Amino acid sequence: MIDKLDADIEHLRKLFVFPESQDRFLEFGKQILDMMYNSFKQKGGLHSSITLDELSSLFSDISIPRDPKLLRDIFPEIQNKIAAHSVKVYSPYYIGHMTSAIPYFTILIEMIVSSLNQNQVKIETAKASTYVERELLCWIHRLIYRKNPRFYKETIQNHRVALGNVTSDGTMANLTAMLVARNLLFKEDGRFPGIASAGLAEAYNHYNCEKTVLLMSKRGHYSFDKIADLCGIGDNNIIKIPVENGTNKIDINVLTKELNSIEDYNNNHEKKIKILSLIGIAGTTETGNIDNLYEMNKLAKKHKTRFHVDAAWGGPVLFVEDYAHLFKGIEEADSVTFDSHKLLYLPLSMGMVLFNSEKDLQSLEHTTQYVVRRDSRDQGRFTIEGSRPFAALRPWVALKVIGSEGFRLLFEKAFTISSYFKTQIDLHSNFESLNEPELFIFNYRFIPNRIKKHLESLMSDKSEASLKQVTRINNELNALNIQLHREIRNNDLSFVSRTVIESTKYSPDEIVVLRAVTINPLTTNSIIKEIIAEHNRLGLRIFNKSWKKKFKNIT
Amino acid sequence: MIDKLDADIEHLRKLFVFPESQDRFLEFGKQILDMMYNSFKQKGGLHSSITLDELSSLFSDISIPRDPKLLRDIFPEIQNKIAAHSVKVYSPYYIGHMTSAIPYFTILIEMIVSSLNQNQVKIETAKASTYVERELLCWIHRLIYRKNPRFYKETIQNHRVALGNVTSDGTMANLTAMLVARNLLFKEDGRFPGIASAGLAEAYNHYNCEKTVLLMSKRGHYSFDKIADLCGIGDNNIIKIPVENGTNKIDINVLTKELNSIEDYNNNHEKKIKILSLIGIAGTTETGNIDNLYEMNKLAKKHKTRFHVDAAWGGPVLFVEDYAHLFKGIEEADSVTFDSHKLLYLPLSMGMVLFNSEKDLQSLEHTTQYVVRRDSRDQGRFTIEGSRPFAALRPWVALKVIGSEGFRLLFEKAFTISSYFKTQIDLHSNFESLNEPELFIFNYRFIPNRIKKHLESLMSDKSEASLKQVTRINNELNALNIQLHREIRNNDLSFVSRTVIESTKYSPDEIVVLRAVTINPLTTNSIIKEIIAEHNRLGLRIFNKSWKKKFKNIT
Repeated sequence: MIDKLDADIEHLRKLFVFPESQDRFLEFGKQILDMMYNSFKQKGGLHSSITLDELSSLFSDISIPRDPKLLRDIFPEIQNKIAAHSVKVYSPYYIGHMTSAIPYFTILIEMIVSSLNQNQVKIETAKASTYVERELLCWIHRLIYRKNPRFYKETIQNHRVALGNVTSDGTMANLTAMLVARNLLFKEDGRFPGIASAGLAEAYNHYNCEKTVLLMSKRGHYSFDKIADLCGIGDNNIIKIPVENGTNKIDINVLTKELNSIEDYNNNHEKKIKILSLIGIAGTTETGNIDNLYEMNKLAKKHKTRFHVDAAWGGPVLFVEDYAHLFKGIEEADSVTFDSHKLLYLPLSMGMVLFNSEKDLQSLEHTTQYVVRRDSRDQGRFTIEGSRPFAALRPWVALKVIGSEGFRLLFEKAFTISSYFKTQIDLHSNFESLNEPELFIFNYRFIPNRIKKHLESLMSDKSEASLKQVTRINNELNALNIQLHREIRNNDLSFVSRTVIESTKYSPDEIVVLRAVTINPLTTNSIIKEIIAEHNRLGLRIFNKSWKKKFKNIT
Repeated sequence: MIDKLDADIEHLRKLFVFPESQDRFLEFGKQILDMMYNSFKQKGGLHSSITLDELSSLFSDISIPRDPKLLRDIFPEIQNKIAAHSVKVYSPYYIGHMTSAIPYFTILIEMIVSSLNQNQVKIETAKASTYVERELLCWIHRLIYRKNPRFYKETIQNHRVALGNVTSDGTMANLTAMLVARNLLFKEDGRFPGIASAGLAEAYNHYNCEKTVLLMSKRGHYSFDKIADLCGIGDNNIIKIPVENGTNKIDINVLTKELNSIEDYNNNHEKKIKILSLIGIAGTTETGNIDNLYEMNKLAKKHKTRFHVDAAWGGPVLFVEDYAHLFKGIEEADSVTFDSHKLLYLPLSMGMVLFNSEKDLQSLEHTTQYVVRRDSRDQGRFTIEGSRPFAALRPWVALKVIGSEGFRLLFEKAFTISSYFKTQIDLHSNFESLNEPELFIFNYRFIPNRIKKHLESLMSDKSEASLKQVTRINNELNALNIQLHREIRNNDLSFVSRTVIESTKYSPDEIVVLRAVTINPLTTNSIIKEIIAEHNRLGLRIFNKSWKKKFKNIT
C-alpha cells in the first residue's frame, strides 16, 4: 500500500516541478492556441446553437472527480464543453457589451502573472510587483489629476501614502471610494473613535445625523445600490437625479435644487441629513455619456461634500487630448474609479481607485501582526480585499506595448465607428437614434418608416391626445424591439444588447433601445453596415408578420 | 498625416488578431517559459539581493509611456526588473506564507481563461462558464454539507437559487457571508423595508437594537475587522474570545459565558444587543488550528444566531476522510468560506462562500435593466463584485487533474512534513515548539538550551517572582527571535514568517514566534532538517555575539 501511495505522490509532486524540458509544456501551449484559434475562426454564430437547458445538463455532475487524470485527457472536455459553448466576445460582430477583444500578447502576460504568483497583500509575497503596482497607480493618477511632477516624484514610491488601490473590479473601486468618504464624514472626534470602530448607529448619534444620502444621476451604475446597502446607509438613500433632456447627463438644475433643499432641511431641523458624496459619471453604462463634472464639482465644493467620479468606462479616453474637455472637472474630484478590463482592452478583471489626496486611504488602514504590519510597505494596509494577484502587470505592460499614443489612436478609431453608426442610423428610414454617443455607446431602435413619420407628426403636435397616442405607439414599439432583439439573438450573426431608458426625447415614456458598444478595433464601417442591414431585414420580417395589423389600429 | 495614422492603427489592430501562424506566439511563450525556468532554477536566495530602496528606484518613472513598443523589447525589462526581483514563493525553502507552489498546468489554464475572457456577471458574456461555476460550487458545497444527492441534483443548475458565490478572495467571501447575515437579521418587516434599503440606523430603530456584535476567537482573521467597519456594525463590536490554553481553539466556556451575559443583558434592557454571527475558524492564519465547530454550532443554535465558518485555509482538507473529525460541525454552519489559492494550490486569487440554505443569497439580490436581470441566469445577481473573470475554471480543472484522491495524498504528505518538523524541534536542544500543528502551520522559536532549562524550572516553580522572571526572559527572547528572523531574511536560504501570539503556555505573555507553513509538495524532510540547522546556526551566532551577556544578567 505504501509503495502505491509513494508512487502516486511522486506523480503529483511532478506536477509542481517546473518542466526542465519545455517541449511538453509548449506542446500543450500549442494545443491551447490551436483550440482557441479554431474556436475563434469557426464560421457561424457568436454563440453555439445549444440551448441553455442542454448546456446546463453538460455540467450537472454532482460528484467531485475522485482519481487523478492526465491534463491531455481533460483537454477535449474543455474544448468541446467549454470553449465551444463560450460567447465570442472577441468577435467584431459582438458589439453588445463592454467586454470586447483583447490584444493577444495579454495571454502571454497572464502566464507571467500566474507563474510568478505574487500575492500583492504583503511585500513578503510581492517584491518587485509592489513597486510595479505603485508605479502604475502613479501613471493613472497623473493622467487624471495632472499634478506637478514634484508631487509624483515624492509620492510614487513613498510607502507612507497611497495614490490609490488596485481592486478586483470597478464595483470594488467604487466601494473603496465610498467607504473612505463615509469614514472621513464620521471620523474620530474627541472621545468618539470614528465610525470604523464605533459603527454607523453610534456615528449618527454622535454627529446628530438622521440619514446619509448619496446623489447621482439616474444613469448611475447599479453597484452604488449594492454599496449603499453594504456600507449601511441604505439604498433608499441614494437620490437619483434625472438627466437633462436627451443628453443623459445629470440635470444640474435639479441637482442644485436638491442640494439646496437638503441645506434648508438642515437649517430647520435638529437632526441633519449628511451627504456622503456626489457621484459624477464619466461614461454611463447604458449610454456612454459623461456628466457635467465641472459643475458637479463646483456644487460639491459649495456644499462641502465629496465628489467621486465613476470613470470605470471612460477613464482611458483621457489619453485623447482633444476630448479632454468632456472630462473637465475630473481633476478636482476627490476620487476616481478606472477599470482596466474595459477601455484598456485587458482581460477580466481589474479596477483602480485613485484619490486626489494621497492621505485619504489612511482612513481604511487596518493592520495585523502577521500580515500587513503598520509602517510596512504592504499594499494590503489600505485595501478592502486581502489576497490579490499581480494583476497590475497587465496594464503596466499594455501601456508600454500600446503607449498612450496607441490608445489615442484606438479611441479615435472607435469614435469614428460610433459616429458612422449613428450617421447610418439617422439616414436609415427604419431606425431611430436615441442618444448622442460620446464614448462609443449608441442607443437606437427599429421603427418602420411609416410609423416613424406618424410619431413625428404626433410629437410636433404636442396636444394631450397626441402625446397619449405617442405613449401607446411607444409601448408597441417596445414590444416590437424586444422581439427584434430576440430574433437578433437567434440569428446569431451579430450581438447588441438592449435596455430600457426614460431619457429619450419621448421622456417620460420608457423606451426599449438596442445598445451597441463599438470598441473592438476589428469592427469596421462595413461590418456596421452589415449589422444594420441584418437588423433591418429581421425587423421588417417580424413587423410584416405580426405587427402590421397592431400598428394599423393605433396609427 | 492620415496615412501615418492608418499605418499605426493597422499595427495596433494586428495586436488584436489571433495569430493564424502561431510560431511567433509560441516563440514568445517559449521565451517566457525560459525566463521563468531560469528564475526558478537560479542558485542563491529566495529574494534578489537588491534593497527595497534600490528596487523602488527602478519603478519611479512618473510618465506613462507615449509611443508603442514591441513586446520583445519589453521582455528584458520584465525579466530583469520584475522576474529577477520577485519572491520565489514556489521554492520548497519558502515556507513562510500560505502562498506556495502551484502545479504548472495552471499556467496553461490561465491562457484559456484569458483568451475566452468570459465575464461571469451575466450569461450574455458567460455561457458555458456560468454552468462550470455552478457545478464547481455544487462540488464544494457537497464536500462541506454532504446533503443527499437529490438536493444537489435539484439545485446544481437551478438558476432561481444559489449554493454560493465565487469571489475574488476569502475576505470577499467572508464579507458576503456577513452581509447575508446582517440583511437577514434586519430583514423586511411590515412597513420596514429591510436594512438593505433603509440603512442600518433605521434598522436599529425598527428592531430596537442598541448594537450588533460578532463573536470569534482572538485568532480570527483581520478581514473581520474590515468587514465590521464596512457593513456598519463597527470593529469595536467584535467580541474576541480568548483561546483555550495551548490549543489556539476558541474557549467554549468563555464563549458560553459571553453569550449568556448578552442574553441576560437583553432580558434586562429595553434596547437589545443583536448577534450577527458566531465565527468558527477552520485553520487560523497564525497557527492553523481549528475551533471546536461542533460546540460552537450548538451554541449558535441555542442562542438563535448564525454560525459562519472561515475555512479559507483548511477547507480543502475535508478531502481527507481520516481528518474529518477535526471539522465536525461544519456541516451545520450557515455559511462557509473556502479559498482556491491556498490549499487547492491554485494561482491567486479566488475564494468561494457556500450557504447551507440555497435561498440565503436572495437577501443580496440586486438587479438592473441592462445587466443582471431578475429571473435571468446571471450569476451577478447575487455577488458583491460586478465584473468577474472565469476563475472557476482553475479549480474545476485542478479537481479533475488532481482529483479528491490526489488532494488527499498531498495533504497526508503535508501532515507528515509538519509532524516531522515539530518532532525535530522538540528533539532539538535550542528550540521550543509553541503550537500543536493541525493544518500544516507550526510555531516555534529559538531558545538556547541553558535558557530553556532555566525557563522550565521557573515555570514549574510558579511563584510570583518566578513568573515575573519568566516574563523578563520572554521579552528578551522576543527581541532575540526578531533579530534571528532578520538574519534568516538576510541569509536568504529559507523563509519563514514571524508573528506574535499570546496563546502559548506562557500566556498571557506575548511570544514572538517563527511560523512555518509547510504545504509545498516539494518540501521534504531533509529540507526541513537543513532549515532547522540553518536557523540554529544563525541563532547561536547572534546569541553568542550580542545576547549572551544580556541573558546572564537575567538568568
